[in-house]
Amino acid sequence: MTTGADQSVPPDGARRLLVRDLAQVVTPAGTHAPLRGAALRDVDVIEDAFVLVRDGAFEAVGRMGDLPRLEGDVEEVDGHGLSAIPGLVDCHTHPAFAGDRANEFALRAGGATYEELLAAGGGILSTTRATRAAGAAELREIVARHRDAMLTHGTTTFEGKSGYGLDHDTELAQLEAVRAAGGVPTWLGAHAVPPEQPDADTYIDWAIEHVLPEAAEIAVAADVFVERGTFDVEQARRYLIACRAAGLALRIHGDQLSEMGAVPLAVELGARSIDHLEATGPEGVAELAASNVVAVMLPVAALYLARPMPRGRALVDAGAAIALATDFNPGSAFCESLPVVWTLACTQLGLAPEEALGASTVNAAHVLGLDDRGRIAVGLRADLVLIDAPDWRHVAYHFAGDVVRSVVREGRVAHLRA
Amino acid sequence: MTTGADQSVPPDGARRLLVRDLAQVVTPAGTHAPLRGAALRDVDVIEDAFVLVRDGAFEAVGRMGDLPRLEGDVEEVDGHGLSAIPGLVDCHTHPAFAGDRANEFALRAGGATYEELLAAGGGILSTTRATRAAGAAELREIVARHRDAMLTHGTTTFEGKSGYGLDHDTELAQLEAVRAAGGVPTWLGAHAVPPEQPDADTYIDWAIEHVLPEAAEIAVAADVFVERGTFDVEQARRYLIACRAAGLALRIHGDQLSEMGAVPLAVELGARSIDHLEATGPEGVAELAASNVVAVMLPVAALYLARPMPRGRALVDAGAAIALATDFNPGSAFCESLPVVWTLACTQLGLAPEEALGASTVNAAHVLGLDDRGRIAVGLRADLVLIDAPDWRHVAYHFAGDVVRSVVREGRVAHLRA
Repeated sequence: MTTGADQSVPPDGARRLLVRDLAQVVTPAGTHAPLRGAALRDVDVIEDAFVLVRDGAFEAVGRMGDLPRLEGDVEEVDGHGLSAIPGLVDCHTHPAFAGDRANEFALRAGGATYEELLAAGGGILSTTRATRAAGAAELREIVARHRDAMLTHGTTTFEGKSGYGLDHDTELAQLEAVRAAGGVPTWLGAHAVPPEQPDADTYIDWAIEHVLPEAAEIAVAADVFVERGTFDVEQARRYLIACRAAGLALRIHGDQLSEMGAVPLAVELGARSIDHLEATGPEGVAELAASNVVAVMLPVAALYLARPMPRGRALVDAGAAIALATDFNPGSAFCESLPVVWTLACTQLGLAPEEALGASTVNAAHVLGLDDRGRIAVGLRADLVLIDAPDWRHVAYHFAGDVVRSVVREGRVAHLRA
Repeated sequence: MTTGADQSVPPDGARRLLVRDLAQVVTPAGTHAPLRGAALRDVDVIEDAFVLVRDGAFEAVGRMGDLPRLEGDVEEVDGHGLSAIPGLVDCHTHPAFAGDRANEFALRAGGATYEELLAAGGGILSTTRATRAAGAAELREIVARHRDAMLTHGTTTFEGKSGYGLDHDTELAQLEAVRAAGGVPTWLGAHAVPPEQPDADTYIDWAIEHVLPEAAEIAVAADVFVERGTFDVEQARRYLIACRAAGLALRIHGDQLSEMGAVPLAVELGARSIDHLEATGPEGVAELAASNVVAVMLPVAALYLARPMPRGRALVDAGAAIALATDFNPGSAFCESLPVVWTLACTQLGLAPEEALGASTVNAAHVLGLDDRGRIAVGLRADLVLIDAPDWRHVAYHFAGDVVRSVVREGRVAHLRA
């Protein structure tokens, strides 16, 4: 099968990239998003294949025997022995933080209680202190560094949340840093209540009045952490309705530690996604399956906190749309690697590699409102990961293996393994 | 503190390597092995430090201010911003196999039953078919490749088992391949019953008679898989006693899926280690704590098979000697990374990073009978991992992070990140 290529293409000044002699090209099948149920397992595989890119978009994909004659300058990449999958999309990360929480990690690992961690200066607010102390320039450098780390693992599109500033300047600086790094900014204004605010209600009122107007100019979505001791459903509803009125898409951190009504709220408000779901039971699964809300699962966070894993298999089987993400953050998921998420998805969530692929490409892009990417298909943004392994499924199978040979982002080779 | 260096060292033709300006040198404390209980958490840390190596062994370790004047040729490595830990020791791997089991992994991930996996050609014996078909040269190339992958993750000493040949020539070829790659060979003659043998008893008799004499010339230890449907305690005892008589140290794969008496057998025979222990209950923990048998935990295998994790915290608290290893193998742990094992140990086994360090250096070396390595201490083999992170504990904290800057093996820079 060759699609979209003329048999002869005149030179016209366009920038072209040809990846030739690929062992396999593997992409989620179909054209719609998000993929649900059995459709999530449906991949198209072309053996002995090429991928042709023009000006940052896929121009043609097909078998080597059908490669069109190309005139003019074409940059060539040898795909011999490699498999190509779409660039990965990480739809849930918190990359705009200063400092780290290695000490808290070590204390928790050795058995410290939550109270002991707080006494040792741990928790979200310890990152808030460090992030407020960093300048805007340092935050831009930090986000760019994490973006580059994600890229080496195959991530070509990432979302990045604020939520460690919790004041006007730092929240906006976080969003700017994500945008400057090419990420998709999400305003997580309601991540925690900062120490200078008397309570959650007062803080939410303040944030809506003083931060939302400018945050809505930068971010594409708003997010809130619904959890016991943080924000309850009423507070989250008020925050999200204000954000929606300001033009933002809605997302919710819900059911991480306990079910408190976050799933019904996400459905009620037509949120793009609800993320975490470690505590979601059968009713929540059924409610999500009957909705348009994407269930974003973050197995690394479940692993770090030794929580039960979210019910990935049940969600897919019930017909819910799912996505997978790293949740990269300094407290509970210091991991930029979507391939590691695949390994966890395949061993802990009961998902097949094909489902992990769709959940971290086309479905994750859909969560971000980006329906121009996530598949290897003519006309879409040319994001590719070239896998150096006997089979593309080694991305999941080879845990922390060195399988990413190179990464093409918007038609350019953005990473090449040394 | 500076230990072991004269203030002036005349040139004498010795090969010297100086790693200078290290942010931290971190090593398990003490001089004995294996470390147990609270001693396992005891590390020595030197800030602003140097490490001096001479002819493959540590010659001096101390603070930069105490660096002796060095004459003659000294190769220097800039340790600025880096932390040094001892080279990691992977005391349980199965690297000598051909083919892979990506298809089986994908089928299991998608929910296939064990019977369906066998029907699809999966299981240990599928690897046996592929490994028998490979020649000795191919096995050497394969083991060397996996050794190099381990090295990039910081492993400077690895054990490698046979057990996929299950015939005379292939078992010996596996052991030779491990030895040729610089590994420590273990004869896992009793891994499974090959298809041409009528039953486990007949196979064990055959293996003891026909393979053991030559295997004992190459291997340093023998190993057996005690599990329902594979080898029972009586068969394992017979096999191990014969191996001990041939001069081999003893190890046991035990309590992976069920408790069948492998722990008492290990204690009875004075085995070096019992490995897996996912199913070990409180009685087994107590019995190990009262013994000299090292409890080797393999959390990647527990993850791949979605089994309960072994009771790491309980074993340490009870006073057992523990070690950690990858269990690298194509069926249930396709992972060469001890840093990944650290992340799992710290999040799933309740171990602190200091305990993960001791368990994969000095204690793992002890399992292999190698008491010349596993610490950064004068006179020991100069194996070092240089960590590029704000803190050495990022090895565990930064899940699948790119923290290994370079690796020194026996005094030479064997890996340098590009």
